[in-house]
Amino acid sequence: MHLTAIVAHPDDADIFCGGTLAKHADRGDDVTVVYMTRGEYGGFDTTEAEVAATREREAEAAAETLGAEAAFLDFEDGRVRYSMENRLQLVDVLREHRPDVVLTHYRDDMHPDHRATSRLVTDAYYMCSLPLLETEYEPWEPQNVYYFGKPTSSFEPETYIDIADYQSTKEEAILQHESQVEWLEEHGGIDAEFDGLVEGVRAEARVLGRTRGAEFAEGFVALHKSADAYLG
Amino acid sequence: MHLTAIVAHPDDADIFCGGTLAKHADRGDDVTVVYMTRGEYGGFDTTEAEVAATREREAEAAAETLGAEAAFLDFEDGRVRYSMENRLQLVDVLREHRPDVVLTHYRDDMHPDHRATSRLVTDAYYMCSLPLLETEYEPWEPQNVYYFGKPTSSFEPETYIDIADYQSTKEEAILQHESQVEWLEEHGGIDAEFDGLVEGVRAEARVLGRTRGAEFAEGFVALHKSADAYLG
Amino acid sequence: MHLTAIVAHPDDADIFCGGTLAKHADRGDDVTVVYMTRGEYGGFDTTEAEVAATREREAEAAAETLGAEAAFLDFEDGRVRYSMENRLQLVDVLREHRPDVVLTHYRDDMHPDHRATSRLVTDAYYMCSLPLLETEYEPWEPQNVYYFGKPTSSFEPETYIDIADYQSTKEEAILQHESQVEWLEEHGGIDAEFDGLVEGVRAEARVLGRTRGAEFAEGFVALHKSADAYLG
Amino acid sequence: MHLTAIVAHPDDADIFCGGTLAKHADRGDDVTVVYMTRGEYGGFDTTEAEVAATREREAEAAAETLGAEAAFLDFEDGRVRYSMENRLQLVDVLREHRPDVVLTHYRDDMHPDHRATSRLVTDAYYMCSLPLLETEYEPWEPQNVYYFGKPTSSFEPETYIDIADYQSTKEEAILQHESQVEWLEEHGGIDAEFDGLVEGVRAEARVLGRTRGAEFAEGFVALHKSADAYLG
Amino acid sequence: MHLTAIVAHPDDADIFCGGTLAKHADRGDDVTVVYMTRGEYGGFDTTEAEVAATREREAEAAAETLGAEAAFLDFEDGRVRYSMENRLQLVDVLREHRPDVVLTHYRDDMHPDHRATSRLVTDAYYMCSLPLLETEYEPWEPQNVYYFGKPTSSFEPETYIDIADYQSTKEEAILQHESQVEWLEEHGGIDAEFDGLVEGVRAEARVLGRTRGAEFAEGFVALHKSADAYLG
Amino acid sequence: MHLTAIVAHPDDADIFCGGTLAKHADRGDDVTVVYMTRGEYGGFDTTEAEVAATREREAEAAAETLGAEAAFLDFEDGRVRYSMENRLQLVDVLREHRPDVVLTHYRDDMHPDHRATSRLVTDAYYMCSLPLLETEYEPWEPQNVYYFGKPTSSFEPETYIDIADYQSTKEEAILQHESQVEWLEEHGGIDAEFDGLVEGVRAEARVLGRTRGAEFAEGFVALHKSADAYLG
Repeated sequence: MHLTAIVAHPDDADIFCGGTLAKHADRGDDVTVVYMTRGEYGGFDTTEAEVAATREREAEAAAETLGAEAAFLDFEDGRVRYSMENRLQLVDVLREHRPDVVLTHYRDDMHPDHRATSRLVTDAYYMCSLPLLETEYEPWEPQNVYYFGKPTSSFEPETYIDIADYQSTKEEAILQHESQVEWLEEHGGIDAEFDGLVEGVRAEARVLGRTRGAEFAEGFVALHKSADAYLG
Repeated sequence: MHLTAIVAHPDDADIFCGGTLAKHADRGDDVTVVYMTRGEYGGFDTTEAEVAATREREAEAAAETLGAEAAFLDFEDGRVRYSMENRLQLVDVLREHRPDVVLTHYRDDMHPDHRATSRLVTDAYYMCSLPLLETEYEPWEPQNVYYFGKPTSSFEPETYIDIADYQSTKEEAILQHESQVEWLEEHGGIDAEFDGLVEGVRAEARVLGRTRGAEFAEGFVALHKSADAYLG
Repeated sequence: MHLTAIVAHPDDADIFCGGTLAKHADRGDDVTVVYMTRGEYGGFDTTEAEVAATREREAEAAAETLGAEAAFLDFEDGRVRYSMENRLQLVDVLREHRPDVVLTHYRDDMHPDHRATSRLVTDAYYMCSLPLLETEYEPWEPQNVYYFGKPTSSFEPETYIDIADYQSTKEEAILQHESQVEWLEEHGGIDAEFDGLVEGVRAEARVLGRTRGAEFAEGFVALHKSADAYLG
Repeated sequence: MHLTAIVAHPDDADIFCGGTLAKHADRGDDVTVVYMTRGEYGGFDTTEAEVAATREREAEAAAETLGAEAAFLDFEDGRVRYSMENRLQLVDVLREHRPDVVLTHYRDDMHPDHRATSRLVTDAYYMCSLPLLETEYEPWEPQNVYYFGKPTSSFEPETYIDIADYQSTKEEAILQHESQVEWLEEHGGIDAEFDGLVEGVRAEARVLGRTRGAEFAEGFVALHKSADAYLG
Repeated sequence: MHLTAIVAHPDDADIFCGGTLAKHADRGDDVTVVYMTRGEYGGFDTTEAEVAATREREAEAAAETLGAEAAFLDFEDGRVRYSMENRLQLVDVLREHRPDVVLTHYRDDMHPDHRATSRLVTDAYYMCSLPLLETEYEPWEPQNVYYFGKPTSSFEPETYIDIADYQSTKEEAILQHESQVEWLEEHGGIDAEFDGLVEGVRAEARVLGRTRGAEFAEGFVALHKSADAYLG
Repeated sequence: MHLTAIVAHPDDADIFCGGTLAKHADRGDDVTVVYMTRGEYGGFDTTEAEVAATREREAEAAAETLGAEAAFLDFEDGRVRYSMENRLQLVDVLREHRPDVVLTHYRDDMHPDHRATSRLVTDAYYMCSLPLLETEYEPWEPQNVYYFGKPTSSFEPETYIDIADYQSTKEEAILQHESQVEWLEEHGGIDAEFDGLVEGVRAEARVLGRTRGAEFAEGFVALHKSADAYLG
């Protein structure tokens, strides 16, 4: 089985679905994280190029921590556009990586890059299996898309994954994003500070797991839902 | 595994969860249907006692069709009360039958008997495992309660069971309730007519299954939800 | 009275509002179906042009079955864009056809063409009556827009139309789309197979009608709602 | 056509559905207001009996203003119980008055009397047509129940009645409840003062009507919804 | 200012609103916790009387930790009834304690005692200011009621209280309920184990606070909402 | 404190948040209204340029009535696009005016200009504090964004501002838009007539205030919510 998470910024995969990715990798699944941007706006007193280089290295270390491959697209931080051209580019990302399961941002999210990424991936999913749509790679049809999101949006998880044994790996992956410590501490208006980030993410996973019989969990909304075979 | 459906009237189990019960029975699970009442108001030009006797026989035939045991409580049709006494009686029903999984009506339902049954079963579930609550039978703790409901209420299924192979059994069970044909045709203000009932139930199951990859499905809301191990 | 349905693909009108269109046509209303695209991606081992030609013929036969006129725009399947230019083109579509009532897709729909069509039509509706907006045709103001949608989105019908006498016409119209049989059977990941489509659509109409006193119904959300004169 | 509004307190009908009742009366429908209680807690420095007598007279004047008959039950203000006995009493109220359409409080309402009345009427509606349920009067089956409610609850109107021509009659009816002026001005913690009441009710009707093409409207939720014949 | 929390069981106040109560007590407000029951079902291999005695002592220690007075009513654990008699008893509880602000359980809660307590307190609030309702104590009108609840119900907080400086006091209060350690570890079907309880409560407070600019927060739904004077 | 309302058309600020702006101005806050367009489509038998000139004068008079500064951007009425270029222009609008609090349209609104404005302002808010994003003005970070909206959309206010003392100022500001009287009376399909507008706006404010202890109120949804210090 092959899972591909397509995220807007270097730390999004670790924060939103790092435990789930680590768990799948640990049972032998292929896991890829595709980064739309290198998060090059996440700094100050420096240049976009320097931030991009630093965050690419951090993302690679974080992906390795999860047991995942890292792949980078060349969209610009804060400027991901929902356009037909970008949609077709994402079609080829899906056709190249040939994932069974795609993970990405939920469509209702205040961050414009998250929202654009969600729409691009979803619409590319609808197009990538079309035989008459010719692009660089062959048509491919993922089985499903799972969306993750922030509790500040209208996102309400319907599928919960027990990540009790992978919460520490998830936190370790988040801690690879060292350059973001100072940035997040200073840039407090939008984000909480970094230590608080790990504690906050852990609390979120505990609360999600709490009523689902799991010590820690991550939550998703599936594009296609399936009937169960039996109750209980 | 032991499943116990606790329903207000003789045809409720077949209509709302008959496919699921038949499927569990077919794999060897113990299945019991507990009827709160004998639906003795479901007739005219007759007496409550005659209707009760007829419908008890029909319920037994329907339960047999599903592969289930039938058990009757002595509540009165249209007059099921939400009281402490009745709640304690339901505690003993659960302690006597010792189900792993309980199925019953959803709490928001326009029929007062359905609503009272839902509340009594749910509250009995909370009490039946208490060691200091002494009743006729020993304490017992079911693993979960699943609620079924009508689309006219606020009921929105979260768990779907694929009943493609048991839709015909479900319909056969519904057809055991012969006495209700004339009644439902005449008493049209509230209910649709009987043939329409089977067709309507089939359409409902098809629509529920349609977006879940199943030809036919039944829908439930679980009291306790569980985290999944993996995506997909 | 003139109704114009504006749909993304050749079979959308029949599936979502075919019964309602047939009913209005049958009482003498003018009914037009405007097809944004010819659904030219709906095939394999062929070309977009061949698929487009085939589906245009099928759409014309389906529209004739409903008693409607067919009109084709030249948007591309899978690539309908929400742009200012396209919005202005839709303004002229409305000004040319001068409908009293417009029917189109609901804005929250996973198919990108449905979503773009919904937005374009709605925004064109807001602009087409403006006297200072000069385009090829004269300003025109439709009375209302009705949206149809898929039960997998957040679409919840508020207006139900009784189509009991037109369900067979609706099914006959759907069956005009012969080329889609093989396509839908093969391309199963997204769509169900064709026979299942008619049965599924029939079940959906029955379920929609069931609690509304109708054997079959179609459901809509109106842009403008009206107060009733009396209860009952 | 016969409409019966069943309300908890003397001024509830005027406030919640006075325009609709006046409009139906004006076209020749029979309209009855059944008062569960005489609102005998609505006073101070007096006795319950005196308040009851005063408010009964005011209710009769208000009903006359609307063109309705007034009927009084003997439940106690603030102490309406949801019990099987009371439900059966309401069965006989419905069987005695034989309404085609019943209007009553919405089930989710913070006032306990409103809530109990809503439940009693709804459950009585389900029982009153049963031929085997013998009470003083003959079985009767109303066609529908319409609920009205306060915007502070979860009540969301689905049916709007245009009362533009009856808003003044509605206000005149409200002003019959003179004894409540001083009471509502003093007892401000729960209720607004009396002048404010009429202005507030008028604003509410204007806001309800505003997006429905009506100068003033009242809003309801129907127990049974019906499909429409045509769009527009 | 006087706050009175009315809770079903000895540990409910600490878990649901302990930080808020401690904070108000710390600024000099009078805080009372009224316990409907002594939670006498919360044990095994013992008697209800012994459990009640132990838990009363623990509740007093917990209330003292919060800086609150403890008061006990004599309702029975697991058997709190929603009746007119009990409602009138709660009227006198409110009239005796004369709180400005009342805190209690949210009405939609799976535990029957929580639900009954919520309804009794709310309905008593509506009656306790009535001058013509004569009971042992004088009429009194609280300014507002705040509801707390479990995330497993439909409870969605609208008011958040920053309890960053009182989270440790809240946890200390919870830890006073020593007798519940063994009970909650054994009786795992319904409740999580005790250490997990404190960690879970802390995670919940962190998640509630996280998007509100607070390290820890508790959440409430107010019966009466107020307009703000200014933005920001 | 500096508040900046960014609105699509000349009368939007007065209608949606005029009372709040007037109240803040009255206590000495700096208040600016930024008009995306001059509403040049709001006329007939004239030119866009003439309408624009007239409405600019009216907007300036209305802003002065509120005690606010007026600033005009050069977007085109009915044609505000959600593009990266426009988002960056809005970044500079925020960086130039340096507001503490931003007020704008809610994202779910049927008018395409309102929707585009909402998205542009929200996304610009996310970008305007980024130090590495260089534009004409220096980075700036507003504290919060408040959204206002129409009751016909999914907008549900969470923050209410008491404008009892500023309702008359609000109405006076609305009346500055004289040119819209004839336009709104004629162009009735979309908008209500002008007198009705003031009465409707007043009714809306009364209804919003009614359950919040205010004679008149305006309603908002805040991007960032804050925890309160105390209850009550």
